[in-house]
Amino acid sequence: MQEINKLFLDEDLPAGRLVRGLAASGAATAAQLSKATGLGRSTVSTILGDLREARIVIDVDGRTNGFGRPSQLLSLNPDMGRCAGVLLGLGEIRIVICDMTHTVLSDVQIHLSRDYTPQDAADTVRRSLDAQCRTIGISQEKLLGVGIAISAPLSFDGKVLNSDVLPSWAGVDIAEIFASRLDCPLHAENESHCGALAEMTWGAAIGEADFVLCKFDLGVGGAIVRDNAVVRGVNGSAAEFGHIVLDPQGPHCRCGNRGCLKGHVAGDYLIRLAQDIIGEPVTIDQFVERAAEGQMVYRRLIEDAAEKAGWGMGIIGTILNPPLFVIAGKLAAIGKNFLEPLERSLRRYMLPQPENVSGLPIPRFVVARFLGNDDTVMGAVALVLRQHGKIASRPM
Amino acid sequence: MQEINKLFLDEDLPAGRLVRGLAASGAATAAQLSKATGLGRSTVSTILGDLREARIVIDVDGRTNGFGRPSQLLSLNPDMGRCAGVLLGLGEIRIVICDMTHTVLSDVQIHLSRDYTPQDAADTVRRSLDAQCRTIGISQEKLLGVGIAISAPLSFDGKVLNSDVLPSWAGVDIAEIFASRLDCPLHAENESHCGALAEMTWGAAIGEADFVLCKFDLGVGGAIVRDNAVVRGVNGSAAEFGHIVLDPQGPHCRCGNRGCLKGHVAGDYLIRLAQDIIGEPVTIDQFVERAAEGQMVYRRLIEDAAEKAGWGMGIIGTILNPPLFVIAGKLAAIGKNFLEPLERSLRRYMLPQPENVSGLPIPRFVVARFLGNDDTVMGAVALVLRQHGKIASRPM
Repeated sequence: MQEINKLFLDEDLPAGRLVRGLAASGAATAAQLSKATGLGRSTVSTILGDLREARIVIDVDGRTNGFGRPSQLLSLNPDMGRCAGVLLGLGEIRIVICDMTHTVLSDVQIHLSRDYTPQDAADTVRRSLDAQCRTIGISQEKLLGVGIAISAPLSFDGKVLNSDVLPSWAGVDIAEIFASRLDCPLHAENESHCGALAEMTWGAAIGEADFVLCKFDLGVGGAIVRDNAVVRGVNGSAAEFGHIVLDPQGPHCRCGNRGCLKGHVAGDYLIRLAQDIIGEPVTIDQFVERAAEGQMVYRRLIEDAAEKAGWGMGIIGTILNPPLFVIAGKLAAIGKNFLEPLERSLRRYMLPQPENVSGLPIPRFVVARFLGNDDTVMGAVALVLRQHGKIASRPM
Repeated sequence: MQEINKLFLDEDLPAGRLVRGLAASGAATAAQLSKATGLGRSTVSTILGDLREARIVIDVDGRTNGFGRPSQLLSLNPDMGRCAGVLLGLGEIRIVICDMTHTVLSDVQIHLSRDYTPQDAADTVRRSLDAQCRTIGISQEKLLGVGIAISAPLSFDGKVLNSDVLPSWAGVDIAEIFASRLDCPLHAENESHCGALAEMTWGAAIGEADFVLCKFDLGVGGAIVRDNAVVRGVNGSAAEFGHIVLDPQGPHCRCGNRGCLKGHVAGDYLIRLAQDIIGEPVTIDQFVERAAEGQMVYRRLIEDAAEKAGWGMGIIGTILNPPLFVIAGKLAAIGKNFLEPLERSLRRYMLPQPENVSGLPIPRFVVARFLGNDDTVMGAVALVLRQHGKIASRPM
């Protein structure tokens, strides 16, 4: 256990690169690891031999796709390490513990008041993590790390930037609050960025080095992935797609701007509209169900939202020309009544792709695997597995 | 000469990485090369010894900035290689030859009819390059490469995609047309992407690994640079900022969309507006001069354009949160009457940067070094120096 912790965290050691490559992918062949780490085939083979002998790496069942002789799949020894993911949600906290092969060992959801404080959150996480670790028979300080997903952009050192969802948390230092209560490395990131990591690790973006994730849920968020890494921007607030200004004279937004995309598309806004029309409360789940069924009012609401969302995505497409769009969030669960007008609108607003050159790749459009809030909590686990967004090391 | 050609083109050899690092930077210290190439200090030192002995690398005058002992600056031996840049412009072709220390040895401009064909262009380039090479005493096939800048997005294999400026060139295979007439490696790229490479190599973005270049000229273009490389997107049409749709009901654009940014901002459009107002022809240079002087009609035109341009840039800023914006193109030569309202508008439309966390970096805003068309032809040279956009190798 000691051994893998050291390897996992050593950025320079080739063996560390292999271990992190396996941690990120769950299972891989030697050839895939060579490609992912940039290490030569013979180096990979030598190191894998050592790691196998130390029982850090094990052979697993399953064969690779493609032609030719099937190659042996390898993974980290699941017993060699555990990591945890924490979702700081609206009125609830969810904590998952996984082993190194990406298997969920424990999954707990805790309800809190909507305005819980950072201290409440940290105390709750500490207590629950201790209990969960006890149940699976390890001690908390043995965790390779805890990842924290939060509904706000974060600075690189873990300070909460502007947040629509948790406004009272703005400026909070996540590292300071949590590090004093947890005895292991800490990682933290914006929830949509975590969502992208979850899709890369378990979902619709496995093997995709470059893509854009657009999340349409109660709010609107997103992530840009380039070369297998989530783009954070100069201060951590990249990919805040909900705040693309579509209409300078549009409704004022909590961010301080006007006419933001989220003001036309966010689930929060759509259920308020639906309530005004039908005269009774509507939950997001009811909205999704009725829009999926194609009930009149809902169908028009979601089509109009898809038109605007596609406009925003079209702009993103013109700017980035990405190989792939992944559509996440509860609104995606509506299915074709949302996705079809969304893709149509995207293709309409994006710079038209050239027709005079044949065989040219164009941006693809797929639905995420995770449409509930599994993406964020699993993405929080992936923060540790992929060593992204580290804000605190193991205390000395 | 033979030797450097081989090194320069070998992607795997550490010595090749060093040579390309020096080619990209013009001059650098051993420490800078170690950082740029990712090679260890001692490896760099050993290889530099060999390259010095072979007279491929030489010591140059000049001392590095910063504290401590000044470090020796190194460059490639200028005599060891030459490369050429070609700008395929509107009714003109410009060809520059540089040595490996980025010194311009020859610069020729040739006027053609506005609707010159690809074959005309290739024949003209061949003839002029031969003459220029003769003048500086080398043979054309000894060039390390020829870079070609063109006012259109290009596919990775050098096919011209949609083009507003050269519509009759759409679909043309640059590699096929030029490779039969030139006996050296060919590179080709969109002119705004070349502009970014020029600013990285000689201009306002030296040492900037990540930035966004926005070019406001007769047209509107741009480039996104990440990790010292220009982002091309899935098919080569990334960063077509002129086609960000600001107004779905706006004027129709040649690209097939409506309300594109360029329809509000392009110099082409602004001089047509000015002509309609004052009743006589206006050139872009006259427009720039009068707007710089603050003449009434021009001042309002450029302020309105800056407002819209800043809206587009604000959207780019919200999406990418880049460390730096570089403003290029002739409109930037107007100076503060354009740049001040542009920056104000950018800051207004971009997601407001958080104020509750102190010391947070925010996107900077600078003017490019090259505001004429030097950026494109020098960027075409940089295509070779930085080995970007290769479409044909040396013929066998």
